[in-house]
Amino acid sequence: MRILGVDPGLRVTGYGLIEGAGSRPQLVEGGVIRSADDAPLATRLLTLYEGLTAVLAEFQPDCAVVEELYAKYAHPKTAILMGHARGALFLAAAQAGVSVVGYEASLVKRSLTGNGRATKAQVAGMVCHLLALETAPSPEDVTDALALALCHASPLRTTQRVPPRRTTGRTFGEHR
Amino acid sequence: MRILGVDPGLRVTGYGLIEGAGSRPQLVEGGVIRSADDAPLATRLLTLYEGLTAVLAEFQPDCAVVEELYAKYAHPKTAILMGHARGALFLAAAQAGVSVVGYEASLVKRSLTGNGRATKAQVAGMVCHLLALETAPSPEDVTDALALALCHASPLRTTQRVPPRRTTGRTFGEHR
Repeated sequence: MRILGVDPGLRVTGYGLIEGAGSRPQLVEGGVIRSADDAPLATRLLTLYEGLTAVLAEFQPDCAVVEELYAKYAHPKTAILMGHARGALFLAAAQAGVSVVGYEASLVKRSLTGNGRATKAQVAGMVCHLLALETAPSPEDVTDALALALCHASPLRTTQRVPPRRTTGRTFGEHR
Repeated sequence: MRILGVDPGLRVTGYGLIEGAGSRPQLVEGGVIRSADDAPLATRLLTLYEGLTAVLAEFQPDCAVVEELYAKYAHPKTAILMGHARGALFLAAAQAGVSVVGYEASLVKRSLTGNGRATKAQVAGMVCHLLALETAPSPEDVTDALALALCHASPLRTTQRVPPRRTTGRTFGEHR
């Protein structure tokens, strides 16, 4: 089982691929896709989309994992731009036939550390421990992406707290 | 000059194509792209993206026009899902080589009616008047899209109030 965690952003999108579930997941690959700050939004999204398409084609994950949306955001405009990037991921995944799963941040934290309010450093520490890394991957977008993948692989993960609405299996359940 | 206005939404995306600028723009085509409520988000975005790609290929507009993002939204989660749909438009436009222009809602209203706080009905009335239509296109997403296209074509449109940052020409200027 190959699981691709993705932390989508317009400037930097982190991704991390692990293989195997349960207590012995292995790190396969991690990286970032960056887009030029001074390029038009459409160009940046195209860069991101093409990068994700290449990653999906090269590593052929069984599923992609993203963070669930919150109900509230401190910076809605930034969050909407993240939504543009997240849309590029969903599109690339749909075209590659890869299903996308979403987990709330608190579930990711709890399944890795046992505490839904764990700090970023605690989560990064568990990412290192679980994947036998000496230091957390940099930039932190990669570590965040690996945490998502590890949550999906975790035997400690309880059922997704926000169940998909009228969808089956693992398919991502956001609807408007 | 062919101008495609687009009002992106996950459920319904309206579009409207006009030809010619100045005082005599002509309606070429208007329509909606709908996605199934009960389909996964990735599938819905793919439907939207494929629909927009088909519209761009068939009508070959010189540019696409969308509404600028606001700074605040009453329903951030819904706005982020709109961001996913808007991302699909930017991607489809980038792949088709069509530039995307954004105008603030108040500028659209002002350039059509002379009043930046005009009601939806007043804007719809001017869309009908300018395009010589007896009634406003339905659903309202099409009328909203045509208003955007007409704003771009309007001789009354003043310079975009939020100038693109470090971009040239008409390219859309959102950056993170």
